[in-house]
Amino acid sequence: MYVIIVYDINVKRVNKVKAYLRKYLLWVQNSVFEGEITKSQLERIKKDLKIICNESEDSIIIYSFRTKRAMKREVLGIEKSLISEII
Amino acid sequence: MYVIIVYDINVKRVNKVKAYLRKYLLWVQNSVFEGEITKSQLERIKKDLKIICNESEDSIIIYSFRTKRAMKREVLGIEKSLISEII
Repeated sequence: MYVIIVYDINVKRVNKVKAYLRKYLLWVQNSVFEGEITKSQLERIKKDLKIICNESEDSIIIYSFRTKRAMKREVLGIEKSLISEII
Repeated sequence: MYVIIVYDINVKRVNKVKAYLRKYLLWVQNSVFEGEITKSQLERIKKDLKIICNESEDSIIIYSFRTKRAMKREVLGIEKSLISEII
């Protein structure tokens, strides 16, 4: 499955979240990660993020799709990640 | 069609982009908008954003889907927008 994760995290925890997500996904823009993962990896990520974050202060939205083909991706301006080379 | 727009804009232009996108979409998190729009509205948005932004400094990613059903949306922590009431 393909996921896009966007987050708004307290500055005390944001680097920890970023370092964690880098293990599974590609950083594409400030506070935005993308990539192909399995269902069990997604469950693991959700579980771990709940531990890392303070759910009364932080906000994470996870958009998931069965396949990347369900989505069209367009960039205006700078492509900050290498994803365009990977696609 | 359903779209998610994430952006990383120079501070000089970010409020203008935010005010513009509010006319079409729902703010859901810092630098993230979502919503249902038509194809022609999306073309209009792309055209207008290219005018507002400096494409050599700013970065906008537009994810679009034929239908919202192609996507699953989960929130960890705070839901910053009203979208959960709308869904």
